Amino acid sequence: MVAATPAIAIGPAPDPLLDDAVRRGGARLAPIESADALVWSENPVGFPDPLPENIRWVQLGSAGVEEWFSAGLIPSDTSIVWTSAAGAFAATVAEHALTLLLAGVRALPEHLEAKTWRQQEFLSKVGTLRGATVAIVGAGGIGRALIPMLAGVGADVVAVNRSGSPVPGAIETLPATRLGEVWSRADHFVIGAPATDATHHLVGAAELAQMKPTSWVINVARGSLVHTTALVKALRDKTIGGAGLDVTDPEPLPDGHPLWDLPNVIITPHDSNPPSVRPPAFAEHVALNVARFVAGEKLTALIDPVVGY
Amino acid sequence: MVAATPAIAIGPAPDPLLDDAVRRGGARLAPIESADALVWSENPVGFPDPLPENIRWVQLGSAGVEEWFSAGLIPSDTSIVWTSAAGAFAATVAEHALTLLLAGVRALPEHLEAKTWRQQEFLSKVGTLRGATVAIVGAGGIGRALIPMLAGVGADVVAVNRSGSPVPGAIETLPATRLGEVWSRADHFVIGAPATDATHHLVGAAELAQMKPTSWVINVARGSLVHTTALVKALRDKTIGGAGLDVTDPEPLPDGHPLWDLPNVIITPHDSNPPSVRPPAFAEHVALNVARFVAGEKLTALIDPVVGY
Repeated sequence: MVAATPAIAIGPAPDPLLDDAVRRGGARLAPIESADALVWSENPVGFPDPLPENIRWVQLGSAGVEEWFSAGLIPSDTSIVWTSAAGAFAATVAEHALTLLLAGVRALPEHLEAKTWRQQEFLSKVGTLRGATVAIVGAGGIGRALIPMLAGVGADVVAVNRSGSPVPGAIETLPATRLGEVWSRADHFVIGAPATDATHHLVGAAELAQMKPTSWVINVARGSLVHTTALVKALRDKTIGGAGLDVTDPEPLPDGHPLWDLPNVIITPHDSNPPSVRPPAFAEHVALNVARFVAGEKLTALIDPVVGY
Repeated sequence: MVAATPAIAIGPAPDPLLDDAVRRGGARLAPIESADALVWSENPVGFPDPLPENIRWVQLGSAGVEEWFSAGLIPSDTSIVWTSAAGAFAATVAEHALTLLLAGVRALPEHLEAKTWRQQEFLSKVGTLRGATVAIVGAGGIGRALIPMLAGVGADVVAVNRSGSPVPGAIETLPATRLGEVWSRADHFVIGAPATDATHHLVGAAELAQMKPTSWVINVARGSLVHTTALVKALRDKTIGGAGLDVTDPEPLPDGHPLWDLPNVIITPHDSNPPSVRPPAFAEHVALNVARFVAGEKLTALIDPVVGY
């Protein structure tokens, strides 16, 4: 007996790249009413709730999925398999994190302010990642993609993840229970953890106080992981070197917010994963997961409906 | 018969790091009058001219040595072996080039100007090096150090060197005679060639005209390699994406120069190789060359007195 070719629906709008990905994965396209799975590339607006009973798997289009949980669309007792796009955009977000960190360490914000040749001053301000220790707090897909980039510039990586199971390329991996050790040990920090109750305000006053006056904190994950008021104070008092923020809390960052005017901050408006790069990366991710679905294998980027990511 | 331990003089001032490097290299320290070689870590001011006849090798402290040639200190018929510090600072300068290129491609200058959350606008401006082709024009020590860094972020490298002998890690290496092909083929350009008559104004109006409107030009070599007036015009007309300049022509760049006020330029005042990183890197280079001198081996970073670098 030959199993029928699985059918996949695409939403909310048709997308030739995704159609092609479904076919490359070995499945066929179908309307949602007769499909086995749904690939939903946008935010929850317009998402079919409840889903038709024929849907056994939903592939979402973003790496972070907390808005799906807060909208109640992924119940903890769901019988459907949910996958995110975690990992699909990891390399481009990691490139953004590397950019922010290098720009900070090499004093680009101050260079761009300067309209005169101040070599002697800058020679004492430009640093290097060579030989520096960078902590990746929440070493998921982005963190793992960042490690070879940091290795390329000669930095050492200390990774922190939930289990503490060794992350390839890191000189050490700490479990989340030993997170407290990392703040005084590393030179710089890249925050890549998912936004959950447990990671809310992961970086607050106590953590910032343990960092070096040259430390840069890069957040490419979610704004809520950093206590904004404490960060502003550390930046004003120059107890840390600076912050590179692709995400903020609140987000969007309102006009007139003190972060806009601090000289040692680089803010990018959650644009680390720009559209020009996203569709082909997401389509690759979909093709991979469709192929696994067709083969009955374990899907990648599974969402845990109980944990919340 | 055991050869006497070679003697090395240090100038212009004593330097414990270099003393240590000489000893680690297997030689001994001596005053210049009785030394076999001279390690000179500063610029030509105060350089002994003529050198005592006992000096057989001079190790200079910079990677670029054109001021030594223009001062007439390295005659083309010199019987002395001259070495530069080429390669010693390659990795830190390469890190700087990577920083400027990433900052340009990811639109950091415009981000730093913005004092309001303009996500939609920036999402169309942020680019990526992933999948981009970067030409390294003058793939010497800096270029070779840059290649693994670019590989780490997923860029392809086309190298240009004098001979065209393949540079490891580059997808293609062009000889200098085929330099003209590179301007329309690559997405971005890192200039790393030495300053000679042949490389003067290597990047001029004709070369800039062949680049893409998104191309960034990074110069970490010498200002004279780029025709400044042509560059200013290309930047003003936005026929290229931008320029990251650690070196300028004239240098220092005078106050009020148009380059200071262009929004798509990042200027760093020749600080890619800051003092905090330089002494240990140069000392490593000296230790290596002293060991080769002691062993009678070919030295690294040999200067060609006829070619001029």
